[in-house]
Amino acid sequence: MPTSLIDCDIHNAVPSVQALFPYLPEYWREYISQSAFKGPIDTSYPVGAATSARPDSTLPAGAPAGSDLEVLRVHTLDAWNAEYGLLNCAYALESLHSPYAAATLATAINEWQIEHWLAKEPRLRASLVVPSQYPDLAVKEIDRVGHHSGFVQIFLPVHSLAPYGTRQWFPVYEAAVRHDLVIGLHFGGTPGNPPTASGWPSYYAEEYANQAQLFQSQVMSLIVEGVFEQFPALRVALIESGFTWMPSLMWRLDKEWRGIRREIPWVKRLPSDYIRAHIRMTTQPVDAPSEPDHLLQIIDQLGSDEMLMFSTDYPHLHDDLRQDAFPLNLPEPLRTKVISGNARAFYRWSR
Amino acid sequence: MPTSLIDCDIHNAVPSVQALFPYLPEYWREYISQSAFKGPIDTSYPVGAATSARPDSTLPAGAPAGSDLEVLRVHTLDAWNAEYGLLNCAYALESLHSPYAAATLATAINEWQIEHWLAKEPRLRASLVVPSQYPDLAVKEIDRVGHHSGFVQIFLPVHSLAPYGTRQWFPVYEAAVRHDLVIGLHFGGTPGNPPTASGWPSYYAEEYANQAQLFQSQVMSLIVEGVFEQFPALRVALIESGFTWMPSLMWRLDKEWRGIRREIPWVKRLPSDYIRAHIRMTTQPVDAPSEPDHLLQIIDQLGSDEMLMFSTDYPHLHDDLRQDAFPLNLPEPLRTKVISGNARAFYRWSR
Repeated sequence: MPTSLIDCDIHNAVPSVQALFPYLPEYWREYISQSAFKGPIDTSYPVGAATSARPDSTLPAGAPAGSDLEVLRVHTLDAWNAEYGLLNCAYALESLHSPYAAATLATAINEWQIEHWLAKEPRLRASLVVPSQYPDLAVKEIDRVGHHSGFVQIFLPVHSLAPYGTRQWFPVYEAAVRHDLVIGLHFGGTPGNPPTASGWPSYYAEEYANQAQLFQSQVMSLIVEGVFEQFPALRVALIESGFTWMPSLMWRLDKEWRGIRREIPWVKRLPSDYIRAHIRMTTQPVDAPSEPDHLLQIIDQLGSDEMLMFSTDYPHLHDDLRQDAFPLNLPEPLRTKVISGNARAFYRWSR
Repeated sequence: MPTSLIDCDIHNAVPSVQALFPYLPEYWREYISQSAFKGPIDTSYPVGAATSARPDSTLPAGAPAGSDLEVLRVHTLDAWNAEYGLLNCAYALESLHSPYAAATLATAINEWQIEHWLAKEPRLRASLVVPSQYPDLAVKEIDRVGHHSGFVQIFLPVHSLAPYGTRQWFPVYEAAVRHDLVIGLHFGGTPGNPPTASGWPSYYAEEYANQAQLFQSQVMSLIVEGVFEQFPALRVALIESGFTWMPSLMWRLDKEWRGIRREIPWVKRLPSDYIRAHIRMTTQPVDAPSEPDHLLQIIDQLGSDEMLMFSTDYPHLHDDLRQDAFPLNLPEPLRTKVISGNARAFYRWSR
C-alpha cells in the first residue's frame, strides 16, 4: 500500500439545489422555490447506468452518490491511504441558458465546496466550478475565489459548443495562469449540441464511449489554435479521458503539422512536444487492453513517464475496485510517478 | 517490387460539371447552364493545401488532379505495377440540398465512371457514388447500377448528419448486401454540420486531422446500433482513415460493452470481434509514429493481420512517395496480405 497516493478525480455531488440555498441570493432562492427548478437535470451519469455509481456508494433517502463527506472519505481517502484527493463536482451548469443562473449557481457551489468539503477535510482539494459557456462570467468567478488555497483547478466539461482552443476561451486561460490554476477538462458536458460530429447517437453506451473522441478534438484544438504559445504557463489535465488513444493522436498531429503547418505558423513546436509539456491525464477509467503488455507498450509510446496521474473516479464504477489494479502494478519508478509524483509536480503540492 | 499489388484508394476527379452533361437529362443541363452552377464546390481537399495533390499530379488548363486517366494510370497502376486499383470519386454530393440534383448527379458520375474509366482500363474498379444524405435515393442508384461488375463498393463520406449506425441507413446496407458491395466510409464530407462534436475549428489543419475522430464515432455507431447483427454479410472499408487509433477504440468499446451492454443486448459479441470480422482499413495516409517499432506494436495490437489494405491515396500528397515505404517493409506473410491478399479476399477478387 503506497503511503503517498494522490487521487486526482473524486466526485462530490450537490445533494439537491436546496443545499445551495445558504449561498444563493434571495432572488434566486425565491425563483428556484416558486418555479420548482431542481437545478440542471442533464447529466452524463444517468442514475441506474452501471458505470454511474459503485453499489456501495448509494446513500439513503435518495441522496446522490458522492454527496456525503463521511462516506466519501471512507471510500477514497481512507481506503487508499491517500495524501490528497481532488474533488470534481459535475453539475451541468453548461446546460443552462440563463447566464445569471449559471453564474450564481457556480458561486454557490464553490462556497458550498469551501464550507462543506475543504474546511472539513484537510486532505481534499477541489476544482472551481464556473459557468463555462459564458467565458466572461467564468473569469469573474475565477477572480472572485481563485486565490483560495483549496482550489487548484478549473472544471471545464469536455463537451462544449465551440472548441476550447478558439479565442473566446482565452480570457479563461489568462485567469487560470493568473491564479496558477490547472484547466481540468472533464468527461461529460451537456451543452445542447450532439455529442458526436455526425449527430445524435441512440444509446447512452455510445455517448459514454464517444467521450474519447471529444477529448481528442479538444486537445487538437488547443494545439492547432496555438493556446500553449499564447499561454506558456498553462497546464491542462484530461480527467476521465482514457489515455490509450493519445499516442495515435500525437503521431497524427505531428505528421499533419509537418505537412501543413504553413497554415498555422504559430504552432512552432511538434504538437507532441506541447502535449507532453502541458497536458496530463488521469488513469481511471483505464481504456485498457486485455493484454497487460499492450498497456505497457502504450505507456511507452507516450514518450513521457510524467503524463499519467492516478485517480479512482469515485463513485463511478469501472471494471475493478481491487487495490492491486492498474496502475499499482507498474514497474518502478513509473509506478510512484503515476501514483503521486506526477500529480504532486503538476498541481505543485509539497509533501 | 510486388507483382500483385492492389491499390484500394485512387481518386478520379470529375474535370468539371460539364463533363457530366452527356449523362444528365435536358432539364438539368439547362438548369446548370442557366444558373452557372459549378457542381458542389465544398471540398475536403482545398486546392493549394499541401496534402491535396502531389505536385506532379497537377494537370494543364486547371483540370483537377486525378481527372486524366492517362496520367493517373502512369502514376498509380503502372508505377506500382498494380493488379487492381479502386477508384473513389469524391464529389461532395452530400452538400447539396436538392435531393433531385444530388441523385441525378450521382447517376451521371457513375455513368461517366463506367464510360471513361472502367471501360478503358481493365485493372480499375470503382466505388458507386450515391446521394448519401437521401438513403431512399441512394438505394435507387445502387439498384440501378450495382450489378455492374466494375463497381465493388458504395462511397459514403465519413462525415454525415446522423451516425451511420442509425436506422435511416439500414436500407442502404440492405442494398449493399443485396448487390454484394462493400460500404466504403471515406475521409471527408461536407454535410453542413460542424466537423467536431464541439463545433467549428478555425483552421483546415484541424479539420483535416480531426477526421480520425469522425471515423471512430462511425465505427462505434455501427457496433452499438447492432448493424452487423442486422446485416451479418455487411463489409465496411475505412478509407483514408488512418488506423493507429483502432486498438484503443477496440479496447474502449470492449470494456464499455462489458460494463453497460444490458442497454444494448443486440450487441451479442465483443465489439472488437465485429470490427475484426467486418471492417478493413486502407494504409495511406499512415498516422504513423516516428519509431518503426511502435507501428509494429500497433499492428500487433489490432489482433488480426487481415485488417489493413494497401492504398496510395493518389493524388493526395503524404509524407512519402518512396516505393519502399510502409507497408512494403512489413515482415512476411503480413506484407503480402497488406499489399494484396486482404483486399483480394475482402473485395472477392480472383487472381
